[in-house]
Amino acid sequence: MFWPDNVAVIGASNQEGKVGNAIMKSLKRKFEGGIFPVNIKEDQILGFEAYGSVIDIKDKVDLALISLPAKIVPDIIKECGEAEIKNVIVVSAGFSEAGREDLEDKIKKIVDEYDMNLIGPNCLGIYNPWIELDTIFNPPERQARPDPGSIAFLSQSGAFGAAILDWFSESNIGLSKFISYGNRADIDEADLISYISEDEKTDYIIFYIEGVKDGRKFFEAAKKSEKPILAIKSGRTEKGSSAATSHTASLAGKDGVYEGAFKQSDVIRINTLREMFNVAKALSFQPLPAGKKIGIVTNGGGAGVMSTDSLIDKGLTLANLSDETKNRFEKAVEEGEIPDHSTLKNPVDIVGDASSERYEKAIEIMLEDDNVDLLIVVCLFQSPALDKHIVEKLGKMQEKEKPIITIASGGEFTHSMSEKIEKRGIPVYQTPEDAVQAIRGLCECCKRTR
Amino acid sequence: MFWPDNVAVIGASNQEGKVGNAIMKSLKRKFEGGIFPVNIKEDQILGFEAYGSVIDIKDKVDLALISLPAKIVPDIIKECGEAEIKNVIVVSAGFSEAGREDLEDKIKKIVDEYDMNLIGPNCLGIYNPWIELDTIFNPPERQARPDPGSIAFLSQSGAFGAAILDWFSESNIGLSKFISYGNRADIDEADLISYISEDEKTDYIIFYIEGVKDGRKFFEAAKKSEKPILAIKSGRTEKGSSAATSHTASLAGKDGVYEGAFKQSDVIRINTLREMFNVAKALSFQPLPAGKKIGIVTNGGGAGVMSTDSLIDKGLTLANLSDETKNRFEKAVEEGEIPDHSTLKNPVDIVGDASSERYEKAIEIMLEDDNVDLLIVVCLFQSPALDKHIVEKLGKMQEKEKPIITIASGGEFTHSMSEKIEKRGIPVYQTPEDAVQAIRGLCECCKRTR
Repeated sequence: MFWPDNVAVIGASNQEGKVGNAIMKSLKRKFEGGIFPVNIKEDQILGFEAYGSVIDIKDKVDLALISLPAKIVPDIIKECGEAEIKNVIVVSAGFSEAGREDLEDKIKKIVDEYDMNLIGPNCLGIYNPWIELDTIFNPPERQARPDPGSIAFLSQSGAFGAAILDWFSESNIGLSKFISYGNRADIDEADLISYISEDEKTDYIIFYIEGVKDGRKFFEAAKKSEKPILAIKSGRTEKGSSAATSHTASLAGKDGVYEGAFKQSDVIRINTLREMFNVAKALSFQPLPAGKKIGIVTNGGGAGVMSTDSLIDKGLTLANLSDETKNRFEKAVEEGEIPDHSTLKNPVDIVGDASSERYEKAIEIMLEDDNVDLLIVVCLFQSPALDKHIVEKLGKMQEKEKPIITIASGGEFTHSMSEKIEKRGIPVYQTPEDAVQAIRGLCECCKRTR
Repeated sequence: MFWPDNVAVIGASNQEGKVGNAIMKSLKRKFEGGIFPVNIKEDQILGFEAYGSVIDIKDKVDLALISLPAKIVPDIIKECGEAEIKNVIVVSAGFSEAGREDLEDKIKKIVDEYDMNLIGPNCLGIYNPWIELDTIFNPPERQARPDPGSIAFLSQSGAFGAAILDWFSESNIGLSKFISYGNRADIDEADLISYISEDEKTDYIIFYIEGVKDGRKFFEAAKKSEKPILAIKSGRTEKGSSAATSHTASLAGKDGVYEGAFKQSDVIRINTLREMFNVAKALSFQPLPAGKKIGIVTNGGGAGVMSTDSLIDKGLTLANLSDETKNRFEKAVEEGEIPDHSTLKNPVDIVGDASSERYEKAIEIMLEDDNVDLLIVVCLFQSPALDKHIVEKLGKMQEKEKPIITIASGGEFTHSMSEKIEKRGIPVYQTPEDAVQAIRGLCECCKRTR
């Protein structure tokens, strides 16, 4: 399913605007495996030889994508079964979400009969950046594709999943897989967890869920997973749940039941889309901390105060600095490296006129303190004293092998500096709360992996 | 203080890197009033005639800015008093925040003796975009200045205030005033509220507070204010409060006391920096709604579900659509303007292949429903069906005189479309929760102004 050599596109089309045309374009763009369009009328599609049926394809096809009207999909799946194709993705809508449970039952029976695996229907399909396998019908100029990385992102919602993918890509969050799994006629969330938790490219699993198909199976698979699972569960409120039913025919269910089950199976619950983004960025860029004791270095006291509030709110701890650290700071003050009106307890405020050299000194001292598991570095770039060398100095500090998270609030200049820092592998957040959401995610994952 | 004809800068300097040089540059940039640098050594500063003392200036000076070492500030203020200058801003640090309460008491006595008003010490001063009065020493290439608008932003923290200003500016949030008020030796938060609530350029007051100087006075002034007041109060947690004491010598106080007092005086509490930004953007761009019944139009069901959850969480209401609206939607389906697999109850899901025409129809019907006080329009731009005409169509819909808030999650293409929509005066948010934070702010302000 995820590492095919040969892919058939059933319903492939030369006609602009058709889903079967867009899927062909997405595959053609970079996928280096075999592409076999199936179309009863055409001889070739986008330069590839076209076949009247999958049965006519002589090569072994590992994966078939189906984009055809719902009512003929069962017969097409049957043909795939006859052609000994083991993996099928049905992109088409018009099944249980449109009141046609009967069609969905029908395809499930065929899939079982031929011992196949099926994703969908009513989905965007999959994207495996490691082999550029891309079945998403949105054009790349509208929706970018993330680079290879270690996060598997699984979404029940196609459109929302695509929007998140686009956002991830812009922020250089790397993915191991994207799976839009739609109505789950066959493969469900639990099957995906079981598969992905064995996938060597994946370190973390992130879900957008409206309602789980089989609760017990999901939570058992989640409990077994050796990889941290993070999930947004929407349809939390009664009104939201009712909207979810219209959307994906999900029974969103009582939120309290999910809350309890997530806790029992160690699924890390994410509450908002931005929190999901913030955590994914940190997981993509930085190692996990050994614990939840946080150090802060800042050139603005207010940002230190707000970061502290947020940390405490999220159940994290402000690190108590060791005596050695205190001594080292005192020495730095004596030697004029840090001014004496700095605040040298955590949060460490090296004040408004801090240069990159002063940052370097303070960051080094903090990272070498065994009581500090993770360091927040606040850079308010409005101060002209904070020179551009901070970028390379922050980059170098990763040698200390502790996670570093940067906060830089501001406008245009701040963004340009933030981009440069992120290129060195350190994530930058616009607000203290965003950074702390990310840190909480790292700490929860670290609990899970120990 | 805020509308001076003539401004003296005491401690003005020709030397690059000095605060007194940066302030002169900020004033010189656009302020059209008189600028009178004071420097005992120089004859001219940045092309302006310099004076040895304010006493030597023959013109009437309305406002004096002081950037000199703390220990000589009291004498300088005395000179200002002798010269009959009624308004003084002390930018210099080195007072109560550095353990020198004695110096601060001294300046307070002089200010009272001469019946003057003083902002500071330990602050960035003020920015009044309406007359380009700009005392902020950060250079504009590091920190942009917002355009004139209707929000007064008052910050106890200078550096953090500057970062927020920079962010506001990038997002075209208009300000009536920015006031960094520092240690509040004389003018405190309550005085500022009393003044600003009479200011005809201001519709909304937003505070960043670590600790209020005189609680009773603050809350009485807030209660009297005819303009909505929104406040971030940081130092909420014990650790945060302790950090605030190191920062601005604030006694942050028990958070529960603030919580209660905010409620009693109708101060709208803001919890995070991003929430402050989200609300400010909505206040700056859109009118207040008549109530809190929210309509949603979306081309992606997932975003509708998450928006609904967020609305309910924040105590807002999903509008019940009127029978007339239902009839109009049915008619639109009959006439082929909206496809029949759309979800035509709130949230209204016009599905993934929605064009701008389909949006126009659905938005019009929703805005004309008396049960809808405010409309959320979700635009997932990953779908190629959503053409660029949505920009002008959304802009035009403002004729209906109901607030519209847009949600567009995604990357580069989405940002370019969002910018275009914002140019038409409609704010766009990256996530459902950001939008709902903004809407909650609008609704709270609307309660307050009725």
